[in-house]
Amino acid sequence: MTNFKAALKKINTFILDVDGVLTDGTVLVLPDGEQVRQFNIKDGYALQLAVKLGYHIEIISGGTSESVRNRLNGLGIEHVNLACKDKMAVFNKCIEKSNLSPENILYVGDDIPDYEVMKAVGLACSPSDAAEEIKSISHYVSPKKGGKGCIRDILEQTMKIQGKWFDANQFDAETAKGIGHQFGW
Amino acid sequence: MTNFKAALKKINTFILDVDGVLTDGTVLVLPDGEQVRQFNIKDGYALQLAVKLGYHIEIISGGTSESVRNRLNGLGIEHVNLACKDKMAVFNKCIEKSNLSPENILYVGDDIPDYEVMKAVGLACSPSDAAEEIKSISHYVSPKKGGKGCIRDILEQTMKIQGKWFDANQFDAETAKGIGHQFGW
Amino acid sequence: MTNFKAALKKINTFILDVDGVLTDGTVLVLPDGEQVRQFNIKDGYALQLAVKLGYHIEIISGGTSESVRNRLNGLGIEHVNLACKDKMAVFNKCIEKSNLSPENILYVGDDIPDYEVMKAVGLACSPSDAAEEIKSISHYVSPKKGGKGCIRDILEQTMKIQGKWFDANQFDAETAKGIGHQFGW
Amino acid sequence: MTNFKAALKKINTFILDVDGVLTDGTVLVLPDGEQVRQFNIKDGYALQLAVKLGYHIEIISGGTSESVRNRLNGLGIEHVNLACKDKMAVFNKCIEKSNLSPENILYVGDDIPDYEVMKAVGLACSPSDAAEEIKSISHYVSPKKGGKGCIRDILEQTMKIQGKWFDANQFDAETAKGIGHQFGW
Repeated sequence: MTNFKAALKKINTFILDVDGVLTDGTVLVLPDGEQVRQFNIKDGYALQLAVKLGYHIEIISGGTSESVRNRLNGLGIEHVNLACKDKMAVFNKCIEKSNLSPENILYVGDDIPDYEVMKAVGLACSPSDAAEEIKSISHYVSPKKGGKGCIRDILEQTMKIQGKWFDANQFDAETAKGIGHQFGW
Repeated sequence: MTNFKAALKKINTFILDVDGVLTDGTVLVLPDGEQVRQFNIKDGYALQLAVKLGYHIEIISGGTSESVRNRLNGLGIEHVNLACKDKMAVFNKCIEKSNLSPENILYVGDDIPDYEVMKAVGLACSPSDAAEEIKSISHYVSPKKGGKGCIRDILEQTMKIQGKWFDANQFDAETAKGIGHQFGW
Repeated sequence: MTNFKAALKKINTFILDVDGVLTDGTVLVLPDGEQVRQFNIKDGYALQLAVKLGYHIEIISGGTSESVRNRLNGLGIEHVNLACKDKMAVFNKCIEKSNLSPENILYVGDDIPDYEVMKAVGLACSPSDAAEEIKSISHYVSPKKGGKGCIRDILEQTMKIQGKWFDANQFDAETAKGIGHQFGW
Repeated sequence: MTNFKAALKKINTFILDVDGVLTDGTVLVLPDGEQVRQFNIKDGYALQLAVKLGYHIEIISGGTSESVRNRLNGLGIEHVNLACKDKMAVFNKCIEKSNLSPENILYVGDDIPDYEVMKAVGLACSPSDAAEEIKSISHYVSPKKGGKGCIRDILEQTMKIQGKWFDANQFDAETAKGIGHQFGW
């Protein structure tokens, strides 16, 4: 999309897959069968900032691990949909429940189960290591891999184009007082 | 093998090693001695789809960790043979019990204990980081490493050549209704 | 900074962020929501040596995980400040409490919350995978990534320039007796 | 060493560091402070084979984690020395207790605490990511990193030059019967 930056200006909602997007796609399996996933702290910084700035964030994952809900709730994300077999059906419920407009939604996915939703949103994005079918229908493919900063890259670009990201020039010109919001406090 | 794609058409059975094939070969050791392995979510997507499509899948591993059985059962794989010291003996039992034909079997291994079985099957495959002895007898060496998508690559190629993989063109031409099987629901 | 090596001579205090600096920025989330971080053993060797040699070391982290305190206490680091929402406020308390001089302080950070403190210390350093805003105000960007030896690189350079690092020439010229301090015993 | 291969012929003992050699140098810290390390399965295959073939294997580690002893005992390695502050003192006790000759010993280390012992053995080896001081005194620097196959590389080369490694040509010429020892059964 030649006009990716312009399209970012209309985004007020992020809908995100988990495995391979918020994680590197690795699942560690504990002896009792419980699964452990690996999240990225720079993604986390951007996510909690986006929550504070009022973006609507929705998670749609096929996984069933409550540790994912724990992690994302801890960042302030309330809408965590797990065990989603049919992501399109969940997506339709989400937009109805929260009155979301597809053209304002940016979705990040990495594999076949994300395909249908990605065709339905305003901006479809993916990490550099997404499946080929997914990259081929993405408006933007991040140079970062899943779990290695692709969400940070995408959220940061959105907030920058909307004038909501940390601005070093502004920071350096002011005193430190009263600019805590720039750090996400 | 110049005719790898053609040979894939005859495959109805996948027999897989675990460490270094379904994992990256790393074993995390917990304080009580229990081991934790790292599986790949894109491998997992292809495996559960292969189960649903009726492929026979058999695991032959030298490892003893029940967490491996938990993970693979969770994907729908019933035949999980652990603690196999002599993989050829286990292989022979498997083909007898399930009446499998070696020429329809694709085996993926990465190290010396896989050598003998790999000489006995129709298609011997390995990840890019397999031992040299194993790569030298493989009909196909995946460009992907163990635990980093080599199983996804091999299963996806098989299902594609057999017309069973997700087809974006077909999807785009149809309505979404009734095509859930393409996603593995 | 053309004179980075010279500036290192004045450093007697290291203040360090944790996530993305002492770790690679990955957070593993256990089923009960507890977080697991990954530290680097070569960083650890340099840190425990720095403690023994009398450097003042202070940790300022936004994270809340007591496992971080456990790990760092185990290396001999007493001043571990966790759950710091406003790092500048914590920094100011630290320098007052321990009577530290900013020009003798080397700080290592990797993301926006570190920005303000990095502007206030004598030497601001970052790993190669820090956020761009942070790298742009760093006097030194290590070629090593966070959790992959950036702290070892920075501490080792400091101790070398101050004549406190292991010296192979001196070691080879002496008998082994009495030089245990070179290994950190 | 131009004559590394020749020197390997005299080796009957392997003495190994753990962190950064048998692992990639990462330490995962659990909430209760316990540490988890990551071992490599191809290293493990070579180690258990070396035990079966009668090589003397000795571990000298500064770490204190009993999970390390669990993992290595599971591979058949009995001599696991943990919490070694002065590795040279432990080394001297080992060679006395087991009547070892330094010229028959291959030692693999990666950091300053290994320096002194590496000067005392017949063959000093290190992974590609060892500290510079260690690589500079190594007779052989493996192209593999610690925990990523450097031990497999070194043990495999030793067993090959001594005619004890798996030999595909011999295997292919024989029937499978009676050659289980080649796989380490």
